[in-house]
Amino acid sequence: MQGTDFSNLQAVTRLSELAGKPWKLNVRGGLDEERVNRFRASGCGFDLLFATQRLDDRVLDGLQDLADEAGLVEQFMAMKQGAVMNRIEGYESEERQVLHTACRDIFSDTPLAPEATAQAREQLERLRKFLEELDRGKLRNHRGERFTTMVQVGIGGSDLGPRALCQALAGHALPERRVRFIANVDPDDAASVLAGLDLSRTLFNVVSKSGTTLETRTNEALVRAALEESGLDPVHHLIAVTGAGSPMDDPKRYRRTFHMFDYIGGRFSVTSMVGGVVLGFMLGYEGFIELLRGANDMDVLAEKPGLLDNLPLLMAMIGIWNRNFLGLPTLAVLPYSQMLHRFPAHLQQCDMESNGKSVTRQGKSVRWKTGPIVWGEPGTNGQHAFYQLLHQGTEVVPVEFIGFRRSQYGHDLKVEGTSSQQKLVVNMLAQAMALATGQEHDNPNKRFPGNRPSTILIGERLTPYAMGALLALYENRIAFQGFCWNINSFDQEGVQLGKVLAGRLLDCLSESPAGAEHSLERGLLKAAGLL
Amino acid sequence: MQGTDFSNLQAVTRLSELAGKPWKLNVRGGLDEERVNRFRASGCGFDLLFATQRLDDRVLDGLQDLADEAGLVEQFMAMKQGAVMNRIEGYESEERQVLHTACRDIFSDTPLAPEATAQAREQLERLRKFLEELDRGKLRNHRGERFTTMVQVGIGGSDLGPRALCQALAGHALPERRVRFIANVDPDDAASVLAGLDLSRTLFNVVSKSGTTLETRTNEALVRAALEESGLDPVHHLIAVTGAGSPMDDPKRYRRTFHMFDYIGGRFSVTSMVGGVVLGFMLGYEGFIELLRGANDMDVLAEKPGLLDNLPLLMAMIGIWNRNFLGLPTLAVLPYSQMLHRFPAHLQQCDMESNGKSVTRQGKSVRWKTGPIVWGEPGTNGQHAFYQLLHQGTEVVPVEFIGFRRSQYGHDLKVEGTSSQQKLVVNMLAQAMALATGQEHDNPNKRFPGNRPSTILIGERLTPYAMGALLALYENRIAFQGFCWNINSFDQEGVQLGKVLAGRLLDCLSESPAGAEHSLERGLLKAAGLL
Repeated sequence: MQGTDFSNLQAVTRLSELAGKPWKLNVRGGLDEERVNRFRASGCGFDLLFATQRLDDRVLDGLQDLADEAGLVEQFMAMKQGAVMNRIEGYESEERQVLHTACRDIFSDTPLAPEATAQAREQLERLRKFLEELDRGKLRNHRGERFTTMVQVGIGGSDLGPRALCQALAGHALPERRVRFIANVDPDDAASVLAGLDLSRTLFNVVSKSGTTLETRTNEALVRAALEESGLDPVHHLIAVTGAGSPMDDPKRYRRTFHMFDYIGGRFSVTSMVGGVVLGFMLGYEGFIELLRGANDMDVLAEKPGLLDNLPLLMAMIGIWNRNFLGLPTLAVLPYSQMLHRFPAHLQQCDMESNGKSVTRQGKSVRWKTGPIVWGEPGTNGQHAFYQLLHQGTEVVPVEFIGFRRSQYGHDLKVEGTSSQQKLVVNMLAQAMALATGQEHDNPNKRFPGNRPSTILIGERLTPYAMGALLALYENRIAFQGFCWNINSFDQEGVQLGKVLAGRLLDCLSESPAGAEHSLERGLLKAAGLL
Repeated sequence: MQGTDFSNLQAVTRLSELAGKPWKLNVRGGLDEERVNRFRASGCGFDLLFATQRLDDRVLDGLQDLADEAGLVEQFMAMKQGAVMNRIEGYESEERQVLHTACRDIFSDTPLAPEATAQAREQLERLRKFLEELDRGKLRNHRGERFTTMVQVGIGGSDLGPRALCQALAGHALPERRVRFIANVDPDDAASVLAGLDLSRTLFNVVSKSGTTLETRTNEALVRAALEESGLDPVHHLIAVTGAGSPMDDPKRYRRTFHMFDYIGGRFSVTSMVGGVVLGFMLGYEGFIELLRGANDMDVLAEKPGLLDNLPLLMAMIGIWNRNFLGLPTLAVLPYSQMLHRFPAHLQQCDMESNGKSVTRQGKSVRWKTGPIVWGEPGTNGQHAFYQLLHQGTEVVPVEFIGFRRSQYGHDLKVEGTSSQQKLVVNMLAQAMALATGQEHDNPNKRFPGNRPSTILIGERLTPYAMGALLALYENRIAFQGFCWNINSFDQEGVQLGKVLAGRLLDCLSESPAGAEHSLERGLLKAAGLL
């Protein structure tokens, strides 16, 4: 099941040779109509145009060989079927299945991981009833009024994905339903969100798998205090999503509880109840099911062996070409959709927490580069900001553009012959062209080197279905890359040391232990003006 | 006035030698209390702790020599005094002064650039009167009600900075005053913002220096249409900030007009009327003046020749150490303040648009690295997301942490002996420690390499004064780095090609010209499903 080391794969040797002379986009014939038509693929309502990557047919063949040789689709199938993929051989590790795909494998009578899907269906049924009670007015506040706002209290995986998707689908929200988020242990986060709310008509959804996350526990305490100050009973306003048996799994403290499971990592949990409760509140139950349908369709697409039939695999391999063979350390994800403005932050988590690793699944140090630094902001805004560096800086940044042919709200206007939506999409295409072809000029300051790679992903309209497909496209791309690099994409040991040191510093603050072994901690606290 | 090429500076040779053996943080004695106390500096209410950088006294001396040899403070003084810094010698270029500092040099009787400061004072006086009319209820809507909301319509420099600062100072907003922003040509941006507003009580502040920015013109048209649809007269609801004599400088179309000037670049324009009108609306006139006072104090600090007396210069030189000598291509700015959650996006623009350049001020290709890729999200949120890669990934990312000892709102709670604010700041310190020292472990997956550089910037509380100082700290840091790299940090030729190509694609959409010279454009539009 476990893969071979990346550097030992035969396809890697061949691709390294090809990388000595990558395709040139900035010369005559480097980018033309025929190339645009040849380097494209489609699936689940999305088209992927990758003529503006620095690759040719030989590279594409090499990437297909790499995917085959590393058994990427086989590993993906094993994951979906419940193999224990979250482990490091021979060392203490989480030893867990990785079954976020089971949450959406609910449209078939023969799901690949039947037990996990049965648990997902059970939670979905609880959600359906809960939302029905809200719709019918069975579940109301103490004055008999309906709840209009849900505030999700969670951090990391319990925040970024659900927040990005709620913002992405705001135009599909039910009337009189809005959602907010509190995540940061910074007390100003809760204070600024609570300042704008009618608490009496607000439900707080506290989300933590372990039930012990420091930030979430602290923010729950702030929320409970604010409710009590307003003369409200917290138990009428709090619901929870947590692991069965966690300290938060307590019906006396929450009006309703939903469960999440060990086999779903936080950053992959949007399609579990972690995202389901808040998205269901906002979109309605059927809206959330449409989102799951899009994700599941993309999961099925990801089972295809051929790169050109499998968008997540294709994007994974293009990413590996840029990262390992062209040596580019970052990746910009630039949505031409204001609704997706927090999607790059979610991907940043999903990608960098999964693949920012240096140890193989056999516990050896990697001798190749793993996950890139992922960042991004929406276009066209970015065109008036950091694109200067993309075009003329000394660092080459590969780009993934994301856009839609139609707007979400449908409120548009023709100015000078074209609609805003047309201007938006056309700008995305123009940027890919400009990055690729560059421009000669007598004035050196007006020269563009070109040869800068990008990919255009375009869909029809940002609906719940499209959002689900887009989410799963990225989740699966990230998993494929982790399989290829032979790393465990599903743990996060890198977050532990900071927690331990923070605990030590907090001890110094509250107990001020003497002793030389804390001199660095005390020195830092003093220099920062905290002691 | 113009600098020497970076690679020809003597200090660069010496620093390159020192970079062969940079200070090790992850060994015994690599980071201790004495080092923490030695590598620190202060100014304008901020402390900068940089013991967790990979440098020693020799490197610090070398960086001081580099700053002196390149004449960085002299160039900064020349800039403040009105030298034409925005130019490329021997080639057509903008040939402009760079005088954003003059906007805040209003507290002295002898400002360094008297004409520009006189113009700034004139605009400030217009703003004071306008805000007074709003306060006293002289300026109201057609029903005689007060305006409660201001929507800024602008993009790039007219959006990111003002938006970041308004969000950063939300806890200081006047009661019943709120601000919103529309930037993207994506029609969903305007639609989603307008959906939540009472238009009758909203002022729209349209901001564009040229008065011709595509996105802003288009969004203004959407706003006017929405007002008319609601039976409101746009001229009662629109105000403008624009260059004198621009197509937007037209009192018949706007209820009030403020001016901005050619000698202030968009990304440096927050302290001009570009930020002044919306910040003044939100904070009141005195709040905006406090912000200017903080910025001006930092501008004065930036005149000091010694690194340890000049925070912007010190941060600039540490950045150059990491970028040019340790070879690190990115920079993460991680505020431990939820209020600053959009500040990294503003810095991304301010830094990458200024220093993402490849041509010297004499029009030669640079042979050294210029501006890094800047990105970031608030902590502690990021700790649950991308920090995995910061600690254990194959890429080293230098970090600038920003934090405050006290919260903005002052609503806090002790949980388990410490307040949320204490937990927040302590986590920031712990992350710097963890990145620096790393950790050995028998389990390779629990090993942290350490030796990863960071800086901690800490202030007392995020007030308008502190925000102004922080803004100018970064603006000046960026300018110092551009001077050192001998590039023009004040133009943005890299945004032009995309505009030209977008125009060509829009022509193909609306006129469908035949002819082989448009075959690539038509091919792209067809492949994207737009033709």
